[in-house]
Amino acid sequence: MEMAGNQISGEGDVPVKKTCMDILLEKMRRLPGLVWQTTLKVGGEDPRRVIHSLKVGLSLTLVSLLYLLEPLFEGIGQNAIWTLMTVVVVLEFTAGATLCKGLNRGLGTLAASLLAFLIEFVADKSGHVCRAIFIGVAVFLIGAATTYTRFFPYIKKNYEYGIVIFLLTFNLITVSSYRIHDVLALAHQRFYTIAIGCGICLFMSLLVFPNWSGEDLHNSTVLKLEGLAISIEACVNEYFQELESQGNEHKLSEDPIYKNYKAVLDSKSSDETLALHASWEPRHSRRCNRYPWQQYVKLGGVLRHFGYTAVALHGCLHSEIQTTHSVRALFRDPCIRAAKELSKVLMELADSIKNHRRCSPGLLSDQLHEALQDLNTAIKSQPRLFLGSDHNKETNMLVLAAATANQKFNKDSGRLSSVKTDSSALLEWKGKKVGEQFKESERKTLRPTLSKIVITSLEFSEALPFAAFASLLVETVARLDLVIEEVEELGRLACFKELKPGDETIVTCERTPRKNIRNPQPQFISEGLG
Amino acid sequence: MEMAGNQISGEGDVPVKKTCMDILLEKMRRLPGLVWQTTLKVGGEDPRRVIHSLKVGLSLTLVSLLYLLEPLFEGIGQNAIWTLMTVVVVLEFTAGATLCKGLNRGLGTLAASLLAFLIEFVADKSGHVCRAIFIGVAVFLIGAATTYTRFFPYIKKNYEYGIVIFLLTFNLITVSSYRIHDVLALAHQRFYTIAIGCGICLFMSLLVFPNWSGEDLHNSTVLKLEGLAISIEACVNEYFQELESQGNEHKLSEDPIYKNYKAVLDSKSSDETLALHASWEPRHSRRCNRYPWQQYVKLGGVLRHFGYTAVALHGCLHSEIQTTHSVRALFRDPCIRAAKELSKVLMELADSIKNHRRCSPGLLSDQLHEALQDLNTAIKSQPRLFLGSDHNKETNMLVLAAATANQKFNKDSGRLSSVKTDSSALLEWKGKKVGEQFKESERKTLRPTLSKIVITSLEFSEALPFAAFASLLVETVARLDLVIEEVEELGRLACFKELKPGDETIVTCERTPRKNIRNPQPQFISEGLG
Repeated sequence: MEMAGNQISGEGDVPVKKTCMDILLEKMRRLPGLVWQTTLKVGGEDPRRVIHSLKVGLSLTLVSLLYLLEPLFEGIGQNAIWTLMTVVVVLEFTAGATLCKGLNRGLGTLAASLLAFLIEFVADKSGHVCRAIFIGVAVFLIGAATTYTRFFPYIKKNYEYGIVIFLLTFNLITVSSYRIHDVLALAHQRFYTIAIGCGICLFMSLLVFPNWSGEDLHNSTVLKLEGLAISIEACVNEYFQELESQGNEHKLSEDPIYKNYKAVLDSKSSDETLALHASWEPRHSRRCNRYPWQQYVKLGGVLRHFGYTAVALHGCLHSEIQTTHSVRALFRDPCIRAAKELSKVLMELADSIKNHRRCSPGLLSDQLHEALQDLNTAIKSQPRLFLGSDHNKETNMLVLAAATANQKFNKDSGRLSSVKTDSSALLEWKGKKVGEQFKESERKTLRPTLSKIVITSLEFSEALPFAAFASLLVETVARLDLVIEEVEELGRLACFKELKPGDETIVTCERTPRKNIRNPQPQFISEGLG
Repeated sequence: MEMAGNQISGEGDVPVKKTCMDILLEKMRRLPGLVWQTTLKVGGEDPRRVIHSLKVGLSLTLVSLLYLLEPLFEGIGQNAIWTLMTVVVVLEFTAGATLCKGLNRGLGTLAASLLAFLIEFVADKSGHVCRAIFIGVAVFLIGAATTYTRFFPYIKKNYEYGIVIFLLTFNLITVSSYRIHDVLALAHQRFYTIAIGCGICLFMSLLVFPNWSGEDLHNSTVLKLEGLAISIEACVNEYFQELESQGNEHKLSEDPIYKNYKAVLDSKSSDETLALHASWEPRHSRRCNRYPWQQYVKLGGVLRHFGYTAVALHGCLHSEIQTTHSVRALFRDPCIRAAKELSKVLMELADSIKNHRRCSPGLLSDQLHEALQDLNTAIKSQPRLFLGSDHNKETNMLVLAAATANQKFNKDSGRLSSVKTDSSALLEWKGKKVGEQFKESERKTLRPTLSKIVITSLEFSEALPFAAFASLLVETVARLDLVIEEVEELGRLACFKELKPGDETIVTCERTPRKNIRNPQPQFISEGLG
């Protein structure tokens, strides 16, 4: 069937109109399959969605019973419809969002009822025509004023839905009061039907398979840290992989490195909404006076800034000017080690947040700063800058020697390009010597190695891209301090478990398998907000 | 009064409870002033908000008349309340948002009514109890299924409000049909009251002082381009201003450079919402078949990525390791020139979008790439890298000479630090020579200058931060190509005016005064979305 469709749409010579029709038919034919795939995918990404849908169906059926069952209907009557409406509008994916909407709806209705009574009390004393004018003016003024307050950032953030409900209820009661004289009953009915609706919503969202915004925020923060850890390490590794860097021309959006830090970059609005909803949730208050959701938002901001550096670092991979591999190889080890330590620290931070325990800043920084020191040493022990055109000859030997050293040094990876040489015998000899020297020192420790290698001459402009890369890596480490600071602050404010002295040794480079970090979390978050 | 408040809250020794009370009182006392200030600020930022508020008030009053005026009430009756409700919910800040909500509400109601009739038709044939069960099951199934479809990304993005209204109307009609037997009339009433409400909303938002989402998106894109242009140029200028870079320790959030690119970084969700609403707007379709709002979103994405590089560039300013000013001064001119050209191109792009005309890519790139070539030449003519500890002596003279050259070169700014020298006589002599040489060449053209200066020796690690800065600047230019590409594509898709051959010379470095670029636009956008 699909093949037939392809054949039809493949006929380019038929008139455009027919082709359009065919495309439409083809689309219609594919639609059921597409819908079914999407259905499975949406449910597969987050099974809580299925549960939430069933919860909504169940709540609606429960509310319908108020209307359908005789004894219940006698008590509540026609207004059961308002309860139905409340459930449709208020029941949200997470408990926090439902609470936020429910309380907004309740407060809005209450405030509007009170104001409407006040207006009613004043209008009651005037004549029929005066009363109509008075109501019209009140509706205009309150409508304009209320709409204006919706632009206030604070109101907009916290009470926008409440304001809408306030305006709605106020208008309903005030305008109705012109023809229905038992406004008190009207307001009363409206209020308690809404209360019943909110009650059912709260029951469903708080007690039946609850989803917590706070938990989502917590998990998304952990995933963001892990994603950053993975992408920075992958980024540095890719930079020093010679062969791949040429063949690696896939699109940015499909890049696994990009995928890992992408969720961090666009997290602002979802973080803020989750934190807002989480602040309504009663949970977590057992362990801590007031759970510091805003600190998660702050940490999110710092992580976003950290992410921008990761983007720049990633940009170095795709830069048009590239430092030759022989030069890169000189700094390969300290760079990779720094990235590894950086990634380890991020993973440790993610782990500490995940398990609600304090992180051990001292230990974290120690190893990282050691690695950074290595990188610094490697860089400092490296070339000086001269005006060089007349020094070329005297250092040619050194260049070759260094190149060979690199060749030996990269023996495992087995591929070192871009060394053009004539005097191969000398190379062999020098190479062996330096290579052995290197291996020996490697056995002891990684650190003082690179400073011992006699190295190459290269143009400043050639070294430029690498310098940028290294500098960004150092910058990343500097930014990491801010992240550690915020995570520590979070641990303090959220009363995370203190780290016992014996636990300090558990910092290992444990790694979540990459397939887990496809970040389904941030996606469903932004979709579940409503 | 405020002083008294301060005195009270300043007494730290009084019991906590009383202090809390005092703080509360103090806050209450300040509240009216704060509210008044916010009111003025919100209106001052965007006077359209005041107009919108008045429009809402007016619409509500108009709808109230349906209820208040006897002849109108006779026609519509009690259901006028539904019209009121529609106006409160549907009337949004921009025409696109109102259209989107209004059509969603209309379509949702229509679809739900049809489905409800189908259910009613089936249920009608069964007995009373069976019917109740049938209705209950239908409510459950439709409720669950509809809620589930809200998680589909496509539905969520385009029709979420419609789905809510669908569910609401379906439940209202189906459940009511159990007790009210003239469901057709119910659905009919509900439909036409909603139609009246939507009609008033559309009239108000399309014809009375309309605000267009498309225009907001257009303007915010222009502002983003201008903001980036300003911050990149300011960033590079600040980097080469010696004195300020030490005293410039203000917080990141208050940094004018940060403020200018900040709006770009967090623009994703507001861009997407604006584009979605704009796609409902009937405007702009005169000149072009279908206005390419999605291209604005795409351009926004590219600009965000461009912004990340700007962030990294800005990060160089605050980096802990800094290249000495003498080194920086060597590259000062080509860098500043490149930044100026870059900023000019961005401004030109902003200008072309603002005036709905095509940009002139050739001209744009030419000057920029010339500047970039300068920078490249400057960098290439600069030092080579050597293992340098034993070469120190022979090049000391050169170092000093170069330092002096810089000193002369920076004479206007009058402050060159970090040159430590003993042999000042030699300096004077060499300095004059190189300085004169420089000035002479400056008079002709800026380009071949720096390659002629004999320059300094410095550690690779010292040059590192500058290398990163220069490399990022080059990277920025590379990314600019992507921006130009997208702007050209936008011009093509949106059928912007073609640039006539005679117009090509109008590219000047016209600059919007900085006070205009406080980006009020993106702020109100995110606030006006609702």
